Amino acid sequence: MTSLADIAGVGADPRRGGYSRHGFDRVELELRTWFTEEATRRGLDVECDRNGNLWAWWGPPGDGAVVTGSHLDSVPGGGAFDGPLGVVSALEAVDVLRAKGFVPSKPFAVVVFAEEEGGRFGVACLGSRLLTGAIAPEAALRLSDSDGVTVAEAMAAAGLDPALVGPDAVALRRIGVFVELHVEQGRGLVDLGAAVGVASSILAHGRWRFSVRGEGNHAGATLMVDRRDPMIAAARVVLAARQAATSGARATVGKLVPNPGGTNVIPSSVDLWLDARAEDDARTRAVVEEISAAASAAAAEEGCSVTVTEESYGDTVVFDAALRDSLSGVLGGVPALPTGAGHDAGILAGHVPTAMLFVRNPTGVSHAPQEHAEPDDCAAGVVALAAVLEELVR
Amino acid sequence: MTSLADIAGVGADPRRGGYSRHGFDRVELELRTWFTEEATRRGLDVECDRNGNLWAWWGPPGDGAVVTGSHLDSVPGGGAFDGPLGVVSALEAVDVLRAKGFVPSKPFAVVVFAEEEGGRFGVACLGSRLLTGAIAPEAALRLSDSDGVTVAEAMAAAGLDPALVGPDAVALRRIGVFVELHVEQGRGLVDLGAAVGVASSILAHGRWRFSVRGEGNHAGATLMVDRRDPMIAAARVVLAARQAATSGARATVGKLVPNPGGTNVIPSSVDLWLDARAEDDARTRAVVEEISAAASAAAAEEGCSVTVTEESYGDTVVFDAALRDSLSGVLGGVPALPTGAGHDAGILAGHVPTAMLFVRNPTGVSHAPQEHAEPDDCAAGVVALAAVLEELVR
Repeated sequence: MTSLADIAGVGADPRRGGYSRHGFDRVELELRTWFTEEATRRGLDVECDRNGNLWAWWGPPGDGAVVTGSHLDSVPGGGAFDGPLGVVSALEAVDVLRAKGFVPSKPFAVVVFAEEEGGRFGVACLGSRLLTGAIAPEAALRLSDSDGVTVAEAMAAAGLDPALVGPDAVALRRIGVFVELHVEQGRGLVDLGAAVGVASSILAHGRWRFSVRGEGNHAGATLMVDRRDPMIAAARVVLAARQAATSGARATVGKLVPNPGGTNVIPSSVDLWLDARAEDDARTRAVVEEISAAASAAAAEEGCSVTVTEESYGDTVVFDAALRDSLSGVLGGVPALPTGAGHDAGILAGHVPTAMLFVRNPTGVSHAPQEHAEPDDCAAGVVALAAVLEELVR
Repeated sequence: MTSLADIAGVGADPRRGGYSRHGFDRVELELRTWFTEEATRRGLDVECDRNGNLWAWWGPPGDGAVVTGSHLDSVPGGGAFDGPLGVVSALEAVDVLRAKGFVPSKPFAVVVFAEEEGGRFGVACLGSRLLTGAIAPEAALRLSDSDGVTVAEAMAAAGLDPALVGPDAVALRRIGVFVELHVEQGRGLVDLGAAVGVASSILAHGRWRFSVRGEGNHAGATLMVDRRDPMIAAARVVLAARQAATSGARATVGKLVPNPGGTNVIPSSVDLWLDARAEDDARTRAVVEEISAAASAAAAEEGCSVTVTEESYGDTVVFDAALRDSLSGVLGGVPALPTGAGHDAGILAGHVPTAMLFVRNPTGVSHAPQEHAEPDDCAAGVVALAAVLEELVR
């Protein structure tokens, strides 16, 4: 048996609550070691690919494998389920199949993707993006965390060779089909009264960095009329994001960093990050353009300047309809749901048939310590995943 | 000779620009060592009081001394002059007096106050507040920096005994008069065409922490209508502060910290700090109340809650008029100016006759790397300070 309780003590964040587990940090490396031990104990052969993703093979590796898994990293102060539930359920599904005496008749692997949340280096799904070529290796290696450590440095410290990072045709060819189980992020299954569902689509989504520059000065000695305060423009961007997110679109500013950040100092600059998502590319672009225009106007009014940089972007993902319907059928007709959250499955969906299973989340809260799934629903997720894998690997 | 160039390499902040030198951190301790060496080289006897303030005595210590000095710490990413100019000018004024063969006929000291900016622990003028009893020792010792290190821990690490921290009647009795030289924070002297001026008053001012609590959740999966996003309320507080600061009042949000601070996470809470100042207590309180009311309304509208905590407050300081006029006379009738900036001199003014000399700042910018004073004006400051001290210590 493997369960989330095994890793409940790893990476708890006493300041934020929940967990802070980030790509290639001490905590995530400890979780990788734990995964390797759990997989090895089951007789799976674990290998790390050139981009830091872990593969545990049941039987000999080969092309066209049935692959399941998720990630072990979290957002800062995230919940216990987002990521690890998919990894633990994959290992438990192997146990279920093996207990039945089942032996896969084609290659089969459990995967752990690296830095899915982008909580350390800012780009989500870094491991699957690198593998599929969705991000250039030079651009990825240059990304840095809040301490200035680059991806190249973090990977090298973890024993990887940054020179080998990049598109991996061998690893990609080995994936015949990918199924990711994940805690639902939202209350769709609660409203439908179902423990498990399948994914239909992922919203188009991306991250944009707004850098507002003004003039740093003394908070007490500087007359209000003499100020060029980037915090004022930043506040207007936060409110513009709320206003622009209509008709199902979502826009969020979750990270905002004034520089220098002293209480008695007018900041010289403020960086803030916009997370925007909508049903399709055009609508997402329109939302970001509306917010960018508001930012420019607010900056100009305050004597500041603003630059907007796209840090990541992914178009709408519609999961393979035949696979989705087939899996739903195997599971007795469970519902199909769209989601606003990005996943490694969304990155892979442009290359191989891909599906997702969602497990009910009683409050819908995710990316927060309150994220939850009941034990019975998690067990139902394992049963469903095992059934789906048995069907695919037969 | 001692000059700011001697310490130009200590505490430079490559990320923010300027200097980050904070109470009892490695950098500020290095500056204390430098000060001790410079004072000792002049034959001054250096002692550290129970609250971490350094005193360099020219001749035997005693009650009713003439005291001059300032502080060595900075705001995060601050300029080179705010604080150190007053310390360096004090040492140079000693050199000027000694070169004339002058020997003080009453006790005389150069002082360095601890954590004047509050850049590490959040409360400005910590050393002088503790000495005068303006902050309770228990409250001060509990304050913590962004890494969770308390004042008690930082002081103990610097070799001080936290059990001895608190009001120091002996040290206070020793101060007969205090004169602090400081770079001007504003363009008053530029407009008047004067290199040096004296202070008339300091605005009433304080810091208030606004803690907005909402519900952390996923930035992509959470519908806009389901959100309780504290960042929205925080943005409205920033704009309310701008709106409330009329008729000479100042209100600034320079520090804002979302928790957990992930790009793809609706924060569960946002802390922001309001720096507010106005001509008197009533006007300052009115400004803060207007902003607090706006915060409550904004939080309620978003399904959030907000608490407002006063972290520090100081009423309007009117410097000793007789001393001010006397010093202005000694200096040939230099102008007297009010200031919006707080100082240790403002804390001491409630206990002993206190005065300040300002040195012209070409742009008025302070608390930022662009803070500046021309060498000729700094030299004029030293000459003026020496003349004032000679008069007081005669």
